[in-house]
Amino acid sequence: MEVDELMCLPRLPRVAVCGGTHGNELSGVYLVRELLKVEKKAVEEEEEPVSVMIVLSNPRATQQCHRYVDTDLNRCFTHATLNGPISDTDPYEIIRSRELNALLGPKGSRQAVDLVCDLHNTTANMGMCFITYSDCDWICLHIFRHLQKEIPDIPMRFIHFDVSNKESYSLDSVGKHGFAMEIGPQPHGVVRSNIYTAMKGGVQHMLDWVRLFNSGAIFRGGFVDVFTMVKHIDYPRDSVTHNITAAIHPHLQDRDFCLLHPDDPLFQTFSGETLRYKGKEPLYPFFINECAYYEKGIALSLARKRRVMIPSIRVETEQEQQANHQQYSSEDEN
Amino acid sequence: MEVDELMCLPRLPRVAVCGGTHGNELSGVYLVRELLKVEKKAVEEEEEPVSVMIVLSNPRATQQCHRYVDTDLNRCFTHATLNGPISDTDPYEIIRSRELNALLGPKGSRQAVDLVCDLHNTTANMGMCFITYSDCDWICLHIFRHLQKEIPDIPMRFIHFDVSNKESYSLDSVGKHGFAMEIGPQPHGVVRSNIYTAMKGGVQHMLDWVRLFNSGAIFRGGFVDVFTMVKHIDYPRDSVTHNITAAIHPHLQDRDFCLLHPDDPLFQTFSGETLRYKGKEPLYPFFINECAYYEKGIALSLARKRRVMIPSIRVETEQEQQANHQQYSSEDEN
Repeated sequence: MEVDELMCLPRLPRVAVCGGTHGNELSGVYLVRELLKVEKKAVEEEEEPVSVMIVLSNPRATQQCHRYVDTDLNRCFTHATLNGPISDTDPYEIIRSRELNALLGPKGSRQAVDLVCDLHNTTANMGMCFITYSDCDWICLHIFRHLQKEIPDIPMRFIHFDVSNKESYSLDSVGKHGFAMEIGPQPHGVVRSNIYTAMKGGVQHMLDWVRLFNSGAIFRGGFVDVFTMVKHIDYPRDSVTHNITAAIHPHLQDRDFCLLHPDDPLFQTFSGETLRYKGKEPLYPFFINECAYYEKGIALSLARKRRVMIPSIRVETEQEQQANHQQYSSEDEN
Repeated sequence: MEVDELMCLPRLPRVAVCGGTHGNELSGVYLVRELLKVEKKAVEEEEEPVSVMIVLSNPRATQQCHRYVDTDLNRCFTHATLNGPISDTDPYEIIRSRELNALLGPKGSRQAVDLVCDLHNTTANMGMCFITYSDCDWICLHIFRHLQKEIPDIPMRFIHFDVSNKESYSLDSVGKHGFAMEIGPQPHGVVRSNIYTAMKGGVQHMLDWVRLFNSGAIFRGGFVDVFTMVKHIDYPRDSVTHNITAAIHPHLQDRDFCLLHPDDPLFQTFSGETLRYKGKEPLYPFFINECAYYEKGIALSLARKRRVMIPSIRVETEQEQQANHQQYSSEDEN
């Protein structure tokens, strides 16, 4: 692939912006509520060039200001869970994931919305991150570059979880394209103006980009640093009680995306001892001391950084679209 | 009162250090677990000059990593709640408050422990605070000055809630002397090494001071800045849904104990408008954007600062103690 190769991609007529997938991550909750007010006005006033669906994903958890009611909604969007047997006694989030799949998907189908942006917060000092399942989704990567350019004062990273579409588990995997917009640090159950404003700006610039793309603008290719998740590290724990016996080391705390070298301090035990990173390869830590991951056994995650070349893109013309549509249809028939 | 007047005060043979009164304020939870291990060793090794009771106040909430199970334990220690009728259907924390009152009190009685130090965290940028119901408890004020001297790198304030002993509602009110040690910022459900270490140091220096005091040391008088709570301010809210419609203004966020003047920015609405402080008197804000106070209708609290003169103190000699004891006994008989 040449950098100046121009790829033509399908239009993105339908976008979903979701918040409150975790009910205590408040920037997304309040931004969605605000967007719902604005959407009401916009619908009354004019026809939008892109249809934007605003969704409060987990209303019950949001009402309780908890991450979830029965189980983590953002782990319910695997092929297996969405298509498993249905029962009256299913946890609330299993039922809700099917409702959302019907609304925004079905996942993997042609009816699915074109782009899902799911809003999240973290207690980790991660700035703004895109979290995706692909390192070659040019739409997500171009939106990311657009935001990097438009919001230069916020540190911004692109995180890639190398998981197949079938096994991808988060709400954003329901769209044809999708990403989680993760912003921190912000305590869960708290809304901080600076984090809220950053998220609001991120969503506005994302929608601006989609409008520009749909209207035929050409977006030049280039390079993006992609952080691919390699492994998680759990806290040291008491073998009997399973309680943690150490916290993130003060030298590591808040230093997300600063290279962690072998033998660097990793944890400080509650009695004051320093435990060091025993890995052999320097890697980039992220989700350092994320509140919700104590129960998942993750003290931090580690990533490898790669520079990915992305092509120039523009939207397909109507003729190209018809030709491709016919091609897809005959493929479907086969 | 002269500054160099020397007051003689009763010994402090029994001290309680409590954590996990709120189950998701993790510095206290992990410090108490650590102290319980150390205590076990200490008891095996030597006789302590002061008896220290280490208490995990709300084990059920701690296990769930929630602030509370049924109701806020740290509002259950009023005279009325502790002495009300007992029922099998009482909320867990009501039952637990009576157990703790039996263990550490009874509140207001001579059997009560001499000093209760209850460990708390806040999401507000408050550094280390002592929170008390008295601005003339020389024991608490002297301990505070000792910690200010011994831990100079942590901002430290003394907060006074002007509430009578009968109406005082928190666990620390059960002791003859008591204070909450409140440290932040730390998200609830997270433990940060720096905050844990500050709390550990605070407790160690507090216990050192009690040992010194009991052994007859004279502590010189001086001045302490006391912040007396004046009022709380709630978030702007939607009149129908009661949802908040604004966050703390970015200029105010994290600026606890920085004087707030009339017309200073107070909130930023979710649509971007600035709302200003309409009070007539400059006051000191604290508990700015504390997570647990959204449900209590408190966006921040405001205090007036006063300089309080505290006398020099030493422990009573045995003779003084006997004389005072006899005096108390005859008062009791009357």
